[in-house]
Parts: sequence; C-alpha cells; structure tokens
Amino acid sequence: MTVNTDSMYEKQLQDHLRAIHQYSLSSIGFPTATDFNYEAVYPFFGYMLNNIGDPYEDALYKLQTKEFEREVIDFFADMFRAPQDDRWGYVTSGGSEGNLYGMYLARELYPEARVYFSAASHYSVDKAASVLRIPTGVVAAQPSGEIDYDALCRAVGQHAGRPAIVVANIGTTMTEAKDDVARIHHALDKAGVGSRYIHSDAALAGIPAAMLLPHVPFDIQDGADSISISGHKFIGSPMPCGIVVTRDSVRKKVARSGMYVGSADTTITGSRNAQAPLFMWSAIKRWGVEGFARRAKDAVDLADYAVDKMGRTDYDAWRNPNAMTVVFKTPAQRIVDAWQLATYDGWSHIVCMPGMTRQRLDAFINDLQRASLA
Amino acid sequence: MTVNTDSMYEKQLQDHLRAIHQYSLSSIGFPTATDFNYEAVYPFFGYMLNNIGDPYEDALYKLQTKEFEREVIDFFADMFRAPQDDRWGYVTSGGSEGNLYGMYLARELYPEARVYFSAASHYSVDKAASVLRIPTGVVAAQPSGEIDYDALCRAVGQHAGRPAIVVANIGTTMTEAKDDVARIHHALDKAGVGSRYIHSDAALAGIPAAMLLPHVPFDIQDGADSISISGHKFIGSPMPCGIVVTRDSVRKKVARSGMYVGSADTTITGSRNAQAPLFMWSAIKRWGVEGFARRAKDAVDLADYAVDKMGRTDYDAWRNPNAMTVVFKTPAQRIVDAWQLATYDGWSHIVCMPGMTRQRLDAFINDLQRASLA
Repeated sequence: MTVNTDSMYEKQLQDHLRAIHQYSLSSIGFPTATDFNYEAVYPFFGYMLNNIGDPYEDALYKLQTKEFEREVIDFFADMFRAPQDDRWGYVTSGGSEGNLYGMYLARELYPEARVYFSAASHYSVDKAASVLRIPTGVVAAQPSGEIDYDALCRAVGQHAGRPAIVVANIGTTMTEAKDDVARIHHALDKAGVGSRYIHSDAALAGIPAAMLLPHVPFDIQDGADSISISGHKFIGSPMPCGIVVTRDSVRKKVARSGMYVGSADTTITGSRNAQAPLFMWSAIKRWGVEGFARRAKDAVDLADYAVDKMGRTDYDAWRNPNAMTVVFKTPAQRIVDAWQLATYDGWSHIVCMPGMTRQRLDAFINDLQRASLA
Repeated sequence: MTVNTDSMYEKQLQDHLRAIHQYSLSSIGFPTATDFNYEAVYPFFGYMLNNIGDPYEDALYKLQTKEFEREVIDFFADMFRAPQDDRWGYVTSGGSEGNLYGMYLARELYPEARVYFSAASHYSVDKAASVLRIPTGVVAAQPSGEIDYDALCRAVGQHAGRPAIVVANIGTTMTEAKDDVARIHHALDKAGVGSRYIHSDAALAGIPAAMLLPHVPFDIQDGADSISISGHKFIGSPMPCGIVVTRDSVRKKVARSGMYVGSADTTITGSRNAQAPLFMWSAIKRWGVEGFARRAKDAVDLADYAVDKMGRTDYDAWRNPNAMTVVFKTPAQRIVDAWQLATYDGWSHIVCMPGMTRQRLDAFINDLQRASLA
C-alpha cells in the first residue's frame, strides 16, 4: 500500500483553513481589520524575498521590495507629520519590534535614562525595557486608561537628574485610551527634566488618531521622537507587521555613537519580510488618505452604534472619545468563548475595526441580551 | 477620463514580480534554498493570523497555527537532540531574533556575563549584544573562519571571575566555518570559567551539520544551551523566519526570575507570523529527515563539483569540510553584479543551496572563465 503524503498534509492544511474560516466569523474582540484581499501579492511567495537591513540602502540581494517599502514609510511619515527632509523608518515584524526599536534609539541617545509608561501599556513595552536593560517607572493610569499626568510628573521628579524616556499609548490595548504627548511634555517640564525622548506606541490607533478631530497630540510634529504602528490592526494584513517612523537626525545621532561600526544594518531584525511592505503598499494605493479617513470615521460610527445599542443591556458599555473599542462588563463564559473576547479585571471589549459589519455586531449584541436574560 | 487605480497598481506589482523573477535566475551568492512551492499555504493569507506569545499556550485568538508550529519545533528539537521531556522553542522572524532570544536567556541567567564570539560571526550577534547591553569580547578567527580556541581561552581568562556567554557559529556567513562546541567547553574549562551559556547560531548550516558526518559538536546534546536556525536558508521559505530551540528548564529558570510578571509572553516579538510555521511544516512533511539528509548531501556534492571545476580557473576556490559555501577570489565587478556576489576582503562566495542546479553553476563558472581570460 502506498500512502500519498502530499494529499495527506494538504488535507490537514485544508481542514485547518476551514476551522480558521469558522472562527473568523465570530471574531469581534481583536483589533484586526478584515476588509482586505491581497491575492495580487500571492505570486511574491514563489520567491525568497528579503529586505535586508536599511530600507534606504540598496542591498546586493535583488529579490526585495525596498522601493515599495520606502513608499509605505513616506506615506505614513506624511501622515505622522515627520519633516520632509528629516525622516526615516522601516517596516517591522510588528508593534513589539517598533516599540523595541524606538526605545533602543532612546536608550542609545540617553544611556542613563529611565523609561516611564502607564500601567495600561501593552506588555511589549515592559518586555522591551527588560530586553534593553532600561530601568522602568510604571505610572498609574486614570480609569479611562489614559496616563495620570500628575503621577507621571511625580515619578519623573523623583529621578530629576536622569533623562526620561516616555512611551505614550496611542490607544491602550484594553480601552483604546490615548496619552496626550503635549501634556506629557508639560509634565516633564514641571518635573524639571529636559533630556527626554518620547515614543508613541500607536500600534492600535495611530491612523485614526491622525484622521479624526479633535486631534490628540501624538505625532512627530506634536513632539514624539518616534512612532510605531501595527500593519495588521487598522491597515489590515494577514500577518503581523508594522511601521516605525522617526526623524532621520535622531537615528543618525545613534549611528554616530559607534554602535553600528562594521554594520550597515540599522534595523532590529536584519533580514526582513519583503512581502509585508507589498501588503502595506497595496493598502495605501487602494485606500489613500481619503480612504483611511473614511474607514476611521466608519469604525468610530459603528462603535458609537454599539455603545448606543449595548446601553440598553446590563453591561455598562462605554468607549473613549473617538475610540473603535467598546468596553463592557465581562459576560458569561459561554459568550466570552464563542466570541473570543479578551477580558481583564472584570471588563471585556469588542473592537469595531474596518471589515466589521453591523450584522455581526447585531448578532453579538443579541447573543449578549439573550445571555443577560437567562 | 477615469483612471483605474487598481489596474495601475497591479501592473506595478506585476512589473516588479517579473524583475524579481529575472534576478532569481542569476542568484547564486546567497544561502537561500529555492526548491519550494507553497501554493497550498496561500489561502491562509486571506485571514489575519497571529501566533501570539508562547506556542505552547493556546491563545484566545483562534486564527492561529500553533499546533503546526509545535510540530515544527518538535521536529527540529529531535534533530538537534533536545531531551524529549525538556525542550521548548518557537518560530522566530529570522536568525537575528533567534540570536537575540538565545543571548537574552543567557543574560537573564547570568546578568554579569560577558559574551564572546569570533570576528567571523554574523553582525546580528554584535547587534544583539548591544541591544541587550552585554559587554562583548570579539575573538580572532582562524583563516578558515573557525574560532581560534586558544584566543577564546585567553579572552575568557582575562575575566575569569565573570560568567561567559559564547555564541558558536555553525556556519559563518562568509566561509561556512563551524565552531566546535566541545572545544569551546574545553577552552572555558581551561580558562577556569564554570558559569557559562553557549548559543549555537546555526542559521546557515544547522540542518546539514545535524545530517552529515563527521559530526561537529554543536547541538543540545553536545552542550549548547540554545540553537537558532533560519527557515529561509536551508529549509526554504519565501520570507525570513527561523526556529529557536532550547531546554525548557533553561527557559523556565528565566521565567522564574520575575522578568515576565504580568505577561504570559515568552517570545521577543509577541505577535508572531502564523503562516511561517505552515511553510516550515509543509517542508518537514514533504522532506522528512531522509529528505533533509539527501538535500544536505546533494548540496555538499554540488559544492564539491564547483570547487573541482573552479580549481581549473585562477580564483583559488576552496571550501570548509562539508560546506555548501565555495569561497574564491573576488572576480571582476561585472561578474559580482551579474551574479549578486557578496564580497569581503577580496573574497567572494557562492552557496550551493538546495534548488541550485549544476546548469546554473556551469553557466556561472563559464562566465568566470571568460572573464579571467579577458
């Protein structure tokens, strides 16, 4: 008897794909846009592509997509108001690498710095601080999830002789709260700390924050030194990826510190995914600035609808200003499991990302109502 | 007049794909296997997949491939002789993350350690040391590219009171030299340093090294504490990825250090690519241990053929034992450009990776001969 291994393993793949499709139908709790179709990019998985090192240096290896990557960086450098003549960035493996990179630049500029961030920050910030051996100061968050600026001022003031790195949350994981970079600068002024570096962790909400009014200060012009966003959240991507943007002058100061002697590589990962920039590039070509603005408005409108409708249930639903994330009291475990809800401290959330339909939202809320009556 | 943006950007993609295809025909200098076809995985790019955090913890987010990832880790944990009941690993974004992770474990176990590695090491090792703030000791390499064990003993001996982390090259970038982990242990014994951690950077040649005789000590049973390999080199993958394998007991010691309080995430990147494990999984199903062994033998046989044939030219071609990499004097710039040859210090190389044909090799050598006659 011969066993056809190929068909066996292809069947396993197909079975898993079906399971993923089923799960996708009830995915409502994770911040992943789903309104994408990147089939035009699939043929690029027929080759081993690699955007090695700096996107602005043409590598010897020609199976790459750095021209596309540079267009992507430029698009978001515009969006985050980095100066035309002083910008740099790269496509990362995701928000964690973006935070690690921003904090790495900060530490190279200020080796004696401490890093401050709120208790509502993503775990990758604390992890990056540990990897980078930067002492941390975790600052209280307000009930909304926004950093407590007075607490920040006090924490920084206790080490007023040392430079401060602050990671601002532009959309906390749980409540999509945004830390105001102008107020962070003000808190540092009050604490008497001049040497500072601010990294905006804008993984979740950087794009909507750039699009929606009133504007919450978070971008390069607002006084952030670097910004990272996720590619697989608001933009939409089948795999984790992200973009980090900084001033080229900031990066060059670090390069001059001698760190990179013997290496032209100025990225954390080195060998870098070259299909991810094609996904991002397709998205910016498809949507443009107007399309991103429309998707941001649609997302918060849908979240508004959800709060309104869930307000008639017993779950105390609420959301932060301009947030796509709707927070509510954690429902029965059956609901949590069925809808893959992230929960924390008695609260759960759904995220009204592009691709979410009113129909799915209604089905969820109906399920919630039935459970509350049970 | 209406402009069809979609067709415009799809045309740009198609043009770039054609250029990549052309370049792929003359790619001979980079260590990337090309004997793959992963079309069965393409439908998985229709969903946002994410293998968040620890591959052994089932996440709430169900659009993932951790079952496949665990099978991949197990396959390579077997290959690298990690104990059945004491193994852990994950699929990384590439060799750089694997090195960063291994050195991170090492530093958490030995916060006062220095890290030693040879001058022939990949730049990512030095970069990881800088990111992790570990003081470095760069040790001379022999002309073959293998670390100088006496020099290592002397370097470690100068700091005999401090623990030593050593990164062993299992295939240096330039000459595919392998550092012998047993001899590294011996050098540390001689230097009187007992507290030690050895990470094998086996990005390039870990799989052939596990397959070919004579065996050069490099794996877990040989005394390495962690090993990282690339997925996009010998295995074959359209995008950078890799696998890191360690003893679970090593990782747990670090987890217990309190580092990860408040986070179940034990990986560097956090949100992780979930299609990469499917590529790796398809490869192990297709090849199995026997297939990998055959590909390793074919690769070194082809390299042997290349050395033999290039021996009749003026380029002083040579290779290390069991290496797929053939080193030779850098030819004219026209040849370097046409064949995308990496060059260093007057030497260039080609890498006879699976997928390389004798036909392409002959075309290259003929071109080389014509240039040398010119």
